[in-house]
Amino acid sequence: MTLEKKPPRRLTILGSTGSIGVNTLDVVNQLGGREAFEIGALTGNGNIELLAEQARAVGAKLAVTADESQYMVLKDALSGTGVDVAAGRSGLDEAASLDADWVMAAIVGTAGLGPTLTAAARGADIALANKECLVSAGELFVGAVRAGGGRLIPVDSEHSAIFQCLDNGQRHALERIILTASGGPFRTYTREQMASVTVATARTHPNWSMGLKISVGSASMFNKALEMIEAKHLFDLTPEQIEVVVHPQSIVHSMVGYSDGSVIAQLGAPDMRTAIGYALTYPKRPKLDVDRLDFTRLARLDFEAPDETRFPALRLARIALTRGGLQPAIMNAAEETAFNAFVEEKIGFLTMADVVEETMERMSDCGSASAMDAVFATDIEARRVAATIIASYEKTA
Amino acid sequence: MTLEKKPPRRLTILGSTGSIGVNTLDVVNQLGGREAFEIGALTGNGNIELLAEQARAVGAKLAVTADESQYMVLKDALSGTGVDVAAGRSGLDEAASLDADWVMAAIVGTAGLGPTLTAAARGADIALANKECLVSAGELFVGAVRAGGGRLIPVDSEHSAIFQCLDNGQRHALERIILTASGGPFRTYTREQMASVTVATARTHPNWSMGLKISVGSASMFNKALEMIEAKHLFDLTPEQIEVVVHPQSIVHSMVGYSDGSVIAQLGAPDMRTAIGYALTYPKRPKLDVDRLDFTRLARLDFEAPDETRFPALRLARIALTRGGLQPAIMNAAEETAFNAFVEEKIGFLTMADVVEETMERMSDCGSASAMDAVFATDIEARRVAATIIASYEKTA
Repeated sequence: MTLEKKPPRRLTILGSTGSIGVNTLDVVNQLGGREAFEIGALTGNGNIELLAEQARAVGAKLAVTADESQYMVLKDALSGTGVDVAAGRSGLDEAASLDADWVMAAIVGTAGLGPTLTAAARGADIALANKECLVSAGELFVGAVRAGGGRLIPVDSEHSAIFQCLDNGQRHALERIILTASGGPFRTYTREQMASVTVATARTHPNWSMGLKISVGSASMFNKALEMIEAKHLFDLTPEQIEVVVHPQSIVHSMVGYSDGSVIAQLGAPDMRTAIGYALTYPKRPKLDVDRLDFTRLARLDFEAPDETRFPALRLARIALTRGGLQPAIMNAAEETAFNAFVEEKIGFLTMADVVEETMERMSDCGSASAMDAVFATDIEARRVAATIIASYEKTA
Repeated sequence: MTLEKKPPRRLTILGSTGSIGVNTLDVVNQLGGREAFEIGALTGNGNIELLAEQARAVGAKLAVTADESQYMVLKDALSGTGVDVAAGRSGLDEAASLDADWVMAAIVGTAGLGPTLTAAARGADIALANKECLVSAGELFVGAVRAGGGRLIPVDSEHSAIFQCLDNGQRHALERIILTASGGPFRTYTREQMASVTVATARTHPNWSMGLKISVGSASMFNKALEMIEAKHLFDLTPEQIEVVVHPQSIVHSMVGYSDGSVIAQLGAPDMRTAIGYALTYPKRPKLDVDRLDFTRLARLDFEAPDETRFPALRLARIALTRGGLQPAIMNAAEETAFNAFVEEKIGFLTMADVVEETMERMSDCGSASAMDAVFATDIEARRVAATIIASYEKTA
């Protein structure tokens, strides 16, 4: 029995067919589904079958595929259901423009930037799962959210943890944040071993089941490097306030250190639904059917200093943080380019960081991220520079 | 430079010469001393030299020794300083009645009950370090605080941790608390080994430097049993919501588990000043010169289930919690009596729990803690019953 009947809240999920999107819909269902929420738009890419099934199940107002060639397939799949259909970049923008008061921003990569900015600018609360908004366009994006008047609530497990540990009334006393990192599958490898790892081993994350890009980013700790930059923008930190500690069990999701010596930590099972639920019902916490931690079974939690010789990504993140401006966007674009080259077996695992560092050095004079055009242009230029560097390595090899 | 000049806050420290009192004065000094705070009363017992020195240093309005025979000694030590002097129970009551708006309640044992109740009833914020207020007279004490209108802020490291992890806006979502326990010096002992331990070994706590009573209570886990009862009253919990986990490093001071699967933990170096500072400036956090945790040096945190066969105190606490009423007061009084007998080598270490359990059984029909008189009478009766049981053990031995 529901004692308190609240008006339905309208939700839009940008990227509903990915892992975050699927988990978001699971949380929505756990919290009452269509009885409790109204679904504005759902967007996906190539998985039309799942997108159509989701849209039907929740009675979405609009379903959008980013892939224009799939427009008719989606249209057919949803004919007679009353769900509007759109496609391509304009379709994504239409989805972001719908009057949902809460938007899950879970489109991966630079493609997510535009729609998320649109939703932020019109004042929706943004549950942020897209990294690029903060890494490549941090100041611009945070400025857009502030101007729009909505709230920005992180969904990454690390940033959600910090958000949960950071009592708003105690922001003045924040001294540092401590981002935890699993250390990935190569935590105990030597540099020599790391030089020859394959894509297949790099994708085997010890604790979380994730996509290829994030798994490899976890293995190289470039994920953590991006998270450091995200944290700077989310919590308005100096580079010195951002610590990283390796914690192989991934139970402590991150921590906040205060000026009285206290450290507040958020812990949980590796399940994205906790962070998604927190973003959905903030400032209240929902009741979720997820695993509870049993400390008598956990037995132990380990911590160790990250080795920046084997994981140069953290050192590069500090350089990008200190230089500011477009440097983080360059780091991100170069890393994506290097990642693709690694997956295509053009370069080795350790070479990814070399490519990123050299790209950052060649473009160290890149100026500030004053407008989205500059961000996009720099992103393209950084990918070009990184590709040139990769090609030069291929010749040498 | 102080940008914001706040009016001095008047503080009273009941029990200023003990460990909590000394640490409280250290925190007061770190936060500006006499410039920032006005000191109402300081109270001590036999350590007149320290009490007089403290009173002079902070310019207290009143200094009180609980020991009436020391009245003239204290009077002489403070002559010409302008510090008023009083002694005995009426002196303690005078100290508690002074118009301080913040009172540190750090008098150990049943002696702390009266003065703390007096301060609570007149509406002072109570920083609570005395266990008996909640263990023996929980409902009465919480009722007095509520009626007075002041705040009740725990100073025990475990309860301060829970208080810190319990965002007030999220009280609805609290599912359980997880009290951590070091496990004490006998964590890895067999029951056979525990049967023959001496007072000297029982007092060697692995992480905290504490008095004899608390050290032995930590070794038997009776401390944790009392803390379970305190937690019930502080946070309004059912017995099922209170978990205990052994955590030998004493870095995680305690945790709160929420309905979304999140666990929020408070961590810190073993230094009471963090909890004292939190209670002093709540809801803000102070800036304190205490050790910061370095997670790369911590290396690991262990957790294990407490063994209630070797540590029956936890089982007895659950019985006391479930029975309610005067049972916790009986448990506490019996435990103090058993502790004294152990220190005097009349009974063995494990026999302490037998004495407590038998006392609780003989007085299981004790009724509710409806008035302080009933609490005091039951306390005396439980000590008498426990002494009888101890005497019967001595005869058998």
